[in-house]
Amino acid sequence: MMTIQTETIVLDSEGKDEIFDITDSVRRTVSASGLHSGIVNVFIPGSTGAVTTIEYEPGAVQDLRDALERAAPKEIRYAHNEAWGDGNGYSHVRAAWLGPSLSVPFESGRIILGTWQQIVVCDCDNKPRSRDVVIQVMGE
Amino acid sequence: MMTIQTETIVLDSEGKDEIFDITDSVRRTVSASGLHSGIVNVFIPGSTGAVTTIEYEPGAVQDLRDALERAAPKEIRYAHNEAWGDGNGYSHVRAAWLGPSLSVPFESGRIILGTWQQIVVCDCDNKPRSRDVVIQVMGE
Amino acid sequence: MMTIQTETIVLDSEGKDEIFDITDSVRRTVSASGLHSGIVNVFIPGSTGAVTTIEYEPGAVQDLRDALERAAPKEIRYAHNEAWGDGNGYSHVRAAWLGPSLSVPFESGRIILGTWQQIVVCDCDNKPRSRDVVIQVMGE
Repeated sequence: MMTIQTETIVLDSEGKDEIFDITDSVRRTVSASGLHSGIVNVFIPGSTGAVTTIEYEPGAVQDLRDALERAAPKEIRYAHNEAWGDGNGYSHVRAAWLGPSLSVPFESGRIILGTWQQIVVCDCDNKPRSRDVVIQVMGE
Repeated sequence: MMTIQTETIVLDSEGKDEIFDITDSVRRTVSASGLHSGIVNVFIPGSTGAVTTIEYEPGAVQDLRDALERAAPKEIRYAHNEAWGDGNGYSHVRAAWLGPSLSVPFESGRIILGTWQQIVVCDCDNKPRSRDVVIQVMGE
Repeated sequence: MMTIQTETIVLDSEGKDEIFDITDSVRRTVSASGLHSGIVNVFIPGSTGAVTTIEYEPGAVQDLRDALERAAPKEIRYAHNEAWGDGNGYSHVRAAWLGPSLSVPFESGRIILGTWQQIVVCDCDNKPRSRDVVIQVMGE
């Protein structure tokens, strides 16, 4: 019998491309659901956050930040900044490009990930805030 | 009891990175489904379209277009153009990179989005056409 | 009545941005499930693989590789490489950015894709290996 369970976790973020490993939270949510197999969808509300996977070690995390800085540098001109003055034009571009959603399968109550693959949230915004992340488990 | 409902909307697009805010369409589809909680999956058929979220104001939208132009400029050499002569090599690269699918959770019949976060379709192609977008609601 | 079916396919990959068209595998999995409508989620376990769609012809595929090389060149400095010495820092960045998951709708037992749109796996790693890809069909 298929069903859905939704949980929200809160991250205390410094912003500035802080990247959070939320794999354990996702694992716990799937395990607590009691479901055997299905999909867990991870979604970040907010237009300056993103979700993806990476090997969560300081080097790879920094390399991703560096690549985003090359593609959408903090210090160039952004039309968003000129209109709104909040200085986070680069944040919107990076988050939209990385994307706010991720869908990971699970079987036998365990999410299917590579050995060195973690589920991460990237807060691309330029100031601290608490950020909600929605973890939705759908399965049977 | 879980179920699925699928709807297709049609966008009248100019191409050339026209970006459409389809949040209201997604909201209406979820509301009309009568479902309480679940996932709405937004997918664009076609290899030159993409789906993501952004703050839909002219500045941020232009900034995303500018970043895509830096990463995959219209005017450089593309092997696709040399083989097919249709001049939209950059469109394929941008769309594949942004990605054609997005999954957004909903609860109590309402999609969970940030205050300034809209669901958008980016038509990366280089000519006008009508574009289908599939909105699929799965929930209970 | 909704249900879930999970299949894993194995790709014999050379790495180095080899891009695989797995559309037929996804089509067969959906068809074999006997389900009428729903979502098929494609996910690659492993932090150096990605899933997206593209027109699978040699030109467009090469153009995507070229764009990734511009954004995360193989030969620049990566903190990951300095820490781990495995030389695939660029692979982690590219895979995280493209993303490991894709959700495609199906109706009447057929996945909904554009005429020239194929589902592809990009192995961004720098050496040959066999790669699992999880295809999960959820529907009714």
